[in-house]
Amino acid sequence: MTITTVGLDADDTLWHNETIFRLTHKRFVELLSDFADETTLEARLAEVEKRNLRLYGYGVKGFTLSMVETAMELTDGAVSTRVIREILAVGREMLSEPVEPLPGVEGALHALSKRYRLVLITKGDLLHQEQKLAASGLGDLFQAVEIVSEKDADTYVRVFNRHGSGPEQAAMAGNSMRSDILPALAAGAYAALVPYPLIWAHEAADAPTGDPRFAELASIADLPAWVDGLNG
Amino acid sequence: MTITTVGLDADDTLWHNETIFRLTHKRFVELLSDFADETTLEARLAEVEKRNLRLYGYGVKGFTLSMVETAMELTDGAVSTRVIREILAVGREMLSEPVEPLPGVEGALHALSKRYRLVLITKGDLLHQEQKLAASGLGDLFQAVEIVSEKDADTYVRVFNRHGSGPEQAAMAGNSMRSDILPALAAGAYAALVPYPLIWAHEAADAPTGDPRFAELASIADLPAWVDGLNG
Repeated sequence: MTITTVGLDADDTLWHNETIFRLTHKRFVELLSDFADETTLEARLAEVEKRNLRLYGYGVKGFTLSMVETAMELTDGAVSTRVIREILAVGREMLSEPVEPLPGVEGALHALSKRYRLVLITKGDLLHQEQKLAASGLGDLFQAVEIVSEKDADTYVRVFNRHGSGPEQAAMAGNSMRSDILPALAAGAYAALVPYPLIWAHEAADAPTGDPRFAELASIADLPAWVDGLNG
Repeated sequence: MTITTVGLDADDTLWHNETIFRLTHKRFVELLSDFADETTLEARLAEVEKRNLRLYGYGVKGFTLSMVETAMELTDGAVSTRVIREILAVGREMLSEPVEPLPGVEGALHALSKRYRLVLITKGDLLHQEQKLAASGLGDLFQAVEIVSEKDADTYVRVFNRHGSGPEQAAMAGNSMRSDILPALAAGAYAALVPYPLIWAHEAADAPTGDPRFAELASIADLPAWVDGLNG
């Protein structure tokens, strides 16, 4: 048996996430349209997010704080408190957004869970990710859930050693080349890219060339057959 | 061998936390002193925090968002944006506060780590707790770190099964009756209260009466002898 364990990313692999962030960005741009155009606003927000990433990490709470900070900085404090209250409300809405599995996810996970150990491996706010998994109804299909602050090769080695039989016998699937694919391959695991139409600029990266352990799938529905194929 | 595994709380058990929150509260009260007195401000902040706990969970990021929201609500939007910027800055300072082990912690952990598996079990923001552990220099003494969204009996059963030989062979130590002691006892583990001079109101609870698996220690320095005594 080559593969015993399958790791799955959560946001934009099992359910929408970037779509919700994009809608929030749009709302943010509207709220501040008296002060600057979309390009300027997006550039400043990206700058503040990047500066805060080391302190805030990933997730909605840090993103909300960065939106408030950007509004303050960009308007030099002239923004109305009504706008700040709106930003806080938008952040809370993101945290209570309903969670709907993406097409093909439930079928793929049911098929995989019959033959492999499934491990959810995701970044973001601890409580929020747990709540999304519970709301998705997919929680029982996973043997383990690992919410991590960073996805690097060490993370995958640690997680696949803890919950599986090591990275060499594991496959990772997700939508981010930078977080799900490249570090999983570097850890010695197999990896399948399941593209999502949108990608956060921070997560973009080039595909590996000529790595036989890598595949790009058209849909998560193709994942069970690909993993089965690795086992010959 | 009765005890194989010792779980340790982090905030206010291994290093200061509530002290930093109290200083931030004081700063918050000063910043808004034109609008209300300390009692009113503290009551409103507690109310907002409680309302947001379900969405934000524990940690500095959610606390910062709650401070901003309280400032908005309480002043009906009349607060200056300078004050909001100050609140954001105070939140970032909390996240980059240096971490110093409390007196007796290093000696106790070194002694315990020679004879037991040590597991850190803590609530709060994932990234921030990892950063505090790294900054404390205590990381290498722990065999596992579990950052959890809630500390209930199920949490202790799961963690002590995963990293030890079950709750019956584990002892938990921490400063919070509500989070560290009562649920660990309910899980079937032993538990020692290591009081910290300050306690967040949300964490207060009565001591268990007549439970032979419970002890209240004067200092964490007494923890190794207490655990050894359980095996003795």
